[in-house]
Amino acid sequence: MRVFIAGVDGYLGWSLAMYLARRGHEVGGCDLYLRRDWVAEMGSQSATPIKRMTDRLEAFKDNFGRNLEFKKGDLCDYNFVLNSFKAFQPEAIVHLGEMPSAPYSMMDVDHCRFTMVNNLMGTLNILYAMKETCRDAQLVKLGTMGEYGTPNLDIPEGYFTIEYRGRTDTLPFPRQANSWYHQTKVHDSNNVMMACRLWGLRSTDIMQGVVFGTRIDEMGDDERLVTRFDFDQCFGTAINRYCAEAVIGHPLSPYGLGHQLRGFLPLRDSMQCMTLAIEHPPKEGECRVFNQFEEVYDLSELAQKVKKVAGTLGLNVEVKNVENPRKEQEKHYYNPDHKHLLDLGYKPSHDIETEMKVMLTDLLRYKDRIEARREALVPDIRWDGTRRRVAFLDQKA
Amino acid sequence: MRVFIAGVDGYLGWSLAMYLARRGHEVGGCDLYLRRDWVAEMGSQSATPIKRMTDRLEAFKDNFGRNLEFKKGDLCDYNFVLNSFKAFQPEAIVHLGEMPSAPYSMMDVDHCRFTMVNNLMGTLNILYAMKETCRDAQLVKLGTMGEYGTPNLDIPEGYFTIEYRGRTDTLPFPRQANSWYHQTKVHDSNNVMMACRLWGLRSTDIMQGVVFGTRIDEMGDDERLVTRFDFDQCFGTAINRYCAEAVIGHPLSPYGLGHQLRGFLPLRDSMQCMTLAIEHPPKEGECRVFNQFEEVYDLSELAQKVKKVAGTLGLNVEVKNVENPRKEQEKHYYNPDHKHLLDLGYKPSHDIETEMKVMLTDLLRYKDRIEARREALVPDIRWDGTRRRVAFLDQKA
Repeated sequence: MRVFIAGVDGYLGWSLAMYLARRGHEVGGCDLYLRRDWVAEMGSQSATPIKRMTDRLEAFKDNFGRNLEFKKGDLCDYNFVLNSFKAFQPEAIVHLGEMPSAPYSMMDVDHCRFTMVNNLMGTLNILYAMKETCRDAQLVKLGTMGEYGTPNLDIPEGYFTIEYRGRTDTLPFPRQANSWYHQTKVHDSNNVMMACRLWGLRSTDIMQGVVFGTRIDEMGDDERLVTRFDFDQCFGTAINRYCAEAVIGHPLSPYGLGHQLRGFLPLRDSMQCMTLAIEHPPKEGECRVFNQFEEVYDLSELAQKVKKVAGTLGLNVEVKNVENPRKEQEKHYYNPDHKHLLDLGYKPSHDIETEMKVMLTDLLRYKDRIEARREALVPDIRWDGTRRRVAFLDQKA
Repeated sequence: MRVFIAGVDGYLGWSLAMYLARRGHEVGGCDLYLRRDWVAEMGSQSATPIKRMTDRLEAFKDNFGRNLEFKKGDLCDYNFVLNSFKAFQPEAIVHLGEMPSAPYSMMDVDHCRFTMVNNLMGTLNILYAMKETCRDAQLVKLGTMGEYGTPNLDIPEGYFTIEYRGRTDTLPFPRQANSWYHQTKVHDSNNVMMACRLWGLRSTDIMQGVVFGTRIDEMGDDERLVTRFDFDQCFGTAINRYCAEAVIGHPLSPYGLGHQLRGFLPLRDSMQCMTLAIEHPPKEGECRVFNQFEEVYDLSELAQKVKKVAGTLGLNVEVKNVENPRKEQEKHYYNPDHKHLLDLGYKPSHDIETEMKVMLTDLLRYKDRIEARREALVPDIRWDGTRRRVAFLDQKA
């Protein structure tokens, strides 16, 4: 299948290109390298020493025996998107090309505005370009489980059938996102749903959980193939940040009470799931929604797991909760469905501690690179719009 | 009360300024005159010969004995919004400054992108500027009943309490808008709701029905005070367009089967309702939602009413349905709640035929202005992205 990956230089995008190539798919893609800039803006860097795109493409060819058809460009430029699709003629478009950080979007009005315009325009351009040039292709759009917020109900996969005052309908499940970034994903979901309804486009809207991991098997031992790994307050996510903290002896730092519940999945499972979506396209006009995660964990429980696994590697670290820079529920009901991908054949790896061990072992090699950007680990972007470094909370919390 | 109207040069904005001034409020506002440009772009003009702002402001002073503090500027320019609020110190901000047309937004990718950026950025700038300069002011945000779409359920006012798999929660009612314009209002609603939750802002999100009418009493006989009245395919709405058609003898033209149901209200009721919202502000952090309409009507039934009233004025016109340029349900369940405004004291005028007679009488004076832009009445913007003038349907339809 011909698969075009928007955001192919990113954590997921670069991994997916290799995962798909290994399975015989033709891969093309684009990127503007903004993620590299944003992480630098946060005073940080990828823990893994990622190569520039020209070297990546060379390594890709060496390892997978085929070219990755790459174009540098901006998804917010409609003609770039249109011409990329005309040239590549994709059967599937995987849209991983958005600004993915909640704190980054909450920094100030400029970052809020940038996030909103960047994410919405990219997706709208893709929808219009699909309508113009490849109406039968499918869109695999990366959303987030964060779109749902934390309602006091089970969370279905996108839609639910409800009775209200004696009548019944199937409606999109209400979404209550908690940052400007998460709101862009909600807006995208609404826009994509409408484009499918009005224009007959096909889409899989992926409500992805929090991804963790340093590698997938397809990277093998060629260090030129390594994917990025961020640990700063904006672009690092929970388990990845805990592991980065562990290797430099920084306390593992859940936010607030630390009993927030979230769905998680290893990088390799994310690849497996996206590939299942790509290989089993939706029908014309269908906008299906997958809740994509392996299991729900409590953020403090995960910190304890990282601490334990780190201990087996001789790394002794504490877990010390910090003030929560976000405004969110710290203790709440959380029970999202995740059946659609299992029905398509998803085999969860179900071995989080082994994955953590792989991660810690990989990261120990890059310890100096994390140490050099230690300051970037400590959050200071708060949901009230101020910038103040969080303090450690009393251990009783 | 000090009320700042964003979009004060518009159909609703200009009327509201007079309505509020008559009730003793201090009115300020801004506009970029984009509505004048968009209507010109559609090859049309306001049926009423509206004055330029300098003349309007002079007439305002003459009639209401006070100045309207006006600034020309762009809501998409954050510093303009911030400085306007700093200077005026509003207690209420009424946001009527968005691009309000579904067909305009559906024309092509450029108009879609413009609508999305213009509407979302304006609202985000207002939210941030409120947070910075007037956190206790209230936002009265104009949304639309179109945000809800046409679900097969009663439509509550913004939120509903539901049981799902044995658990209960109160959630935002799912919204399924049917044009890019309507989607911008959905996105705004989500953004405003979050700003209230995170920052404690106060907001009334008005899901307004379709407004009709040529005047409010406050305009009196000073023709310099007349508000705009659009009848083109983009900026004219159902009853207004039927009345414009009637005075030039053009067939009244419901779209498709013509059994779409929508909530409607006269211009004077819209003024009454917005003023009730302004004078009864929400609590800190509250984002309340009002469904603002007088009554639900069938689009064909309204055409028949206009035909009947026109007949009493000696205007003989036919009702002839045309192809529906939109993709929408033409026969559907529709039962939205509208209790919140009645609870605040809204007295619906409940006399649609008298209002139609006032409108037709007013418009007869401007018959030549409508006749001169007759072509603008016929829709050609279709929801599939093409431009083809609609044809009359067989009368059996």
